[in-house]
Order: sequence, then structure tokens, then C-alpha cells
Amino acid sequence: MERYTITISEELLEKFDTSIQNKGYSNRSEAIRDLVRDSLVDDEWAEENEKVAATVTLVYDHHTSDLGDKLTELQHHSANLVVAATHVHLDNDNCLEVIILRGKCQDVRHLAEKMIAIRGVKHGKIVHTTEGRSIA
Amino acid sequence: MERYTITISEELLEKFDTSIQNKGYSNRSEAIRDLVRDSLVDDEWAEENEKVAATVTLVYDHHTSDLGDKLTELQHHSANLVVAATHVHLDNDNCLEVIILRGKCQDVRHLAEKMIAIRGVKHGKIVHTTEGRSIA
Amino acid sequence: MERYTITISEELLEKFDTSIQNKGYSNRSEAIRDLVRDSLVDDEWAEENEKVAATVTLVYDHHTSDLGDKLTELQHHSANLVVAATHVHLDNDNCLEVIILRGKCQDVRHLAEKMIAIRGVKHGKIVHTTEGRSIA
Amino acid sequence: MERYTITISEELLEKFDTSIQNKGYSNRSEAIRDLVRDSLVDDEWAEENEKVAATVTLVYDHHTSDLGDKLTELQHHSANLVVAATHVHLDNDNCLEVIILRGKCQDVRHLAEKMIAIRGVKHGKIVHTTEGRSIA
Repeated sequence: MERYTITISEELLEKFDTSIQNKGYSNRSEAIRDLVRDSLVDDEWAEENEKVAATVTLVYDHHTSDLGDKLTELQHHSANLVVAATHVHLDNDNCLEVIILRGKCQDVRHLAEKMIAIRGVKHGKIVHTTEGRSIA
Repeated sequence: MERYTITISEELLEKFDTSIQNKGYSNRSEAIRDLVRDSLVDDEWAEENEKVAATVTLVYDHHTSDLGDKLTELQHHSANLVVAATHVHLDNDNCLEVIILRGKCQDVRHLAEKMIAIRGVKHGKIVHTTEGRSIA
Repeated sequence: MERYTITISEELLEKFDTSIQNKGYSNRSEAIRDLVRDSLVDDEWAEENEKVAATVTLVYDHHTSDLGDKLTELQHHSANLVVAATHVHLDNDNCLEVIILRGKCQDVRHLAEKMIAIRGVKHGKIVHTTEGRSIA
Repeated sequence: MERYTITISEELLEKFDTSIQNKGYSNRSEAIRDLVRDSLVDDEWAEENEKVAATVTLVYDHHTSDLGDKLTELQHHSANLVVAATHVHLDNDNCLEVIILRGKCQDVRHLAEKMIAIRGVKHGKIVHTTEGRSIA
């Protein structure tokens, strides 16, 4: 860890301190590093061939015919991209599944879009994140 | 399922068809229903007391001292909100963890912010989703 | 305008109706067309060479030395991209300026980033929109 | 302006430097202040009664009957919120209009939604920004 000095107005710092306390930060440097890292992850995802990690959150009704099969088939066809999947039962009908992916940005995005497009998926969202190595 | 007729220009439909084929949709109705559902999930999250589901994606270096303990402690203190957590090892240093949450909108949001704020978490994102019951 | 029939559950339609009434829509077809168009505008911006329109909103303190000059210079250097600019005085110190841009996606994005990066700009945001021709 | 020292890894700083140079920043402190300010503007918009500024970007076909009248009427009914409006002609059919608003967060949001919901508006987006006073 290095020390680096920024210039910033006292008023801005005070407001920032209140804001990050509400969010549970114990430390101003950590909050600033998080802003910096978040902007760098956005950059990674702007490069089609960059290696990235992602999670896809799906909520669906498991009674929809073939849905489970289609999801499984898709994941097996892209086994090199799928790291793990977790499934929870929200109620008698509804499931929430999170699939963890890693690979080239464009492949990961494409697979996520396909899973979200399956008939019977009520809600699907992808989180763009990082493999972590380059975000120190 | 009911049938409902919308008026829409031929040109708009054609463009939409191309767009959703690229995303893997087999069916125009399904693509439109997905847009409708997504806008309704946004509405759910605008109500502080609405019951919602969420996932939190965290990437962190597990060598950061106390990080694992703090995450576990936080999750146990809010055990009523935490449904499951999945952990994968990205490399020797980096972990990706997804935590599935459900509960009142404001409680879920607050817990997610706290996890993201822990020192050593390199990247954290929350996905706002739904328990599914009200999104048919 | 054509008529097109979608299948959708009664429950989903009811919720959607409540949601769009709150937002001021008088008409369900119009609300659905807006969702479709919004997804198409996102597609336009995924193509680097697509012709697009954009607005850049800047809030800044006009006392910051050289800021006004730099903004003007930037806009003149890219005169082919800048359609118009509107400036309002928020108070003695603060100005809000909106610049309307059109051109190739990547050029527009690049110019917007440069304006937002100028020292003294407190807050800057770009809106990705469309020239309208292809969104009927 | 005060000086404030943060701890941050050399590797993270190097990556950040590359990233902000591409975006046109001449200065690392300014880039960090922009991240801080952007997070504070998000906070302002989480408070319904906070005084904020906003811009609404609309693209529409001016041949749509009554659209211009409805937009004008809406703006006059909320004259206390509307600061200025700029209109440009994109082609024979399409217009782009930017309306600058300021007032209580919830009032501004509500008016923006209403304008976007008008039939004939092809694309509408709101930018949440600040009156600047509290973002030093």
C-alpha cells in the first residue's frame, strides 16, 4: 500500500464522510478505493476480449415446461464458462438461481443474455464483475 | 394467459425482432413480457417495505485479515435475511461470493451496502430482483 | 400503425396498468412501445459507428478559472458534433449547461467524457438517445 | 482546498491513471473528486424532499397531433419547476428537446415521468443532477 495525497475541499469531505458512514464504511480510504475499483471494472467490460467474471440472477417458475432442462442444457453447452450455480426455492412455484460465470467478456455476456431470454424466466439480471487479479 | 392486442408500427416490430433474436429470444411475446416485468421489479424496489429478493456479488482477496470473519458475522447477525451463499475460488488470492437475500427492501439494501463496504472487498454489486409471486 | 397480439397474463397486465397510470401514461400500447424503443436505443449505442444523438448535462462553478474557455474551446474543436448548448444560472456560483450532440457513437462519447473531465465540473452525465429516424 | 492522504496500492493507481487519461482527465485528484461527487448526487436523489436539478431529454416526431401542445401545457402547469427548454430539429420529422428542471426531488421526478409518457415521445431520459451548492 502506498500513500497518495489528493486535494479536496473540507465541505466535500464532510459530506462524503456522512454518506459512507451510512453505508457502513469504517474508513474513508477504503470508500475511495471502492469508487476507483468500480470505475476500473466498468473499463474491463468495455473490452470484448478481456477476461471477466459475472453472476447471472434468474427468478423463474419451475413449473414452466422444459425451463429447467433448457437452463441445464445451455450451461452444459458452455461448460467452460460456468463455474457454479446455486438454486433456492422461494415458494412452491418460484425459484431463484445464481450462476457464476467467467471467460471472455463477449462470451459471458452472450450466454447471460440467452439464459435471461428463456421462456418462463420472470426476471434476469447480469452483474459485471472482475476476476480480481488486476484490481489490487 | 390472455391475448392482448397492441398497436405498433411495422418498422419498430422489425427492428425489435432483429434485436431479440440476437439476444436469443424465440418469441416476441416473451421479450415484451420481460420488458414489462423488468419495469415492475423496479417499482417493487421503490417501496421501502415491499418484500423483495436480491443477490450480492462480492469479489475479494481472502488474505485480507478478518474479512471472512466479518462477512460471516454480518450474515449471522442478519440470518433472517440471508438465504444462501456460494463461494468460488478464482485463483490463489481472489474469491467470488454470491449471497442470496430476501426480506424488506430497506433491510436488504442496508445489509448489502454493509457487505460491500467491508475492507478488502474489491468489487461489490447488488441485483434487485423479486420473490416472483407478484410477477406472473 | 399495425395491430399485433401478445399473450400475457391478466395479473401481469393489471400490475402494469397501475404502474403506468402512476407514471402518467394514458395508454397501454404507448407504454409498451416505450419499453421496446428504449431497448432499441441501447442497441444503437452498442455499435461504435452508429449515428446517434446525445445530451450532456454539466453543473459547474463558473468562477473556476478557464473552465468556460475550455468548454467553449472543446465545443469549437468538435463543432461538427455540437448542435446547441443551453446555459442557466442556478445561483451566484453554479451554472447548469446542457449540450446537445449528434454524430458517430464513439466520437460523441469521447467528447462527452472530455467535457465531464474538465476541472471544476462538479457533476456531468451523458444521455444516450437517438436521432429518431430508425425508431418509428 | 485541503490536502488529504489516502492509502492505495501502486498497481491500482497505475490502472486508474491510464483509465482517466483516456477519459481526458489531466489530474488524478480531479478524477477522484468526480467519483466522490457523483456518489453524493446519488444520495441527494434518495431524499424525496431534497432540492435538486435535472434535465429531461425527449426525442419526438413533431407531426404527432397535440404532442407539442401537451408538452407546453405540462410545462406551464409546472412553471415553478421548469427553468428552460431547448429545441433542435434533427430532421423533417424528428425533434430533440431538453428541459431543465429544478425543485423538490419527487416533484421533478413526477413531471419528468409525465413528459416521457406523452404519446409520440420516442425516447425520454432524465438526468439526476444537483443544484451544486452542496457539492463543493
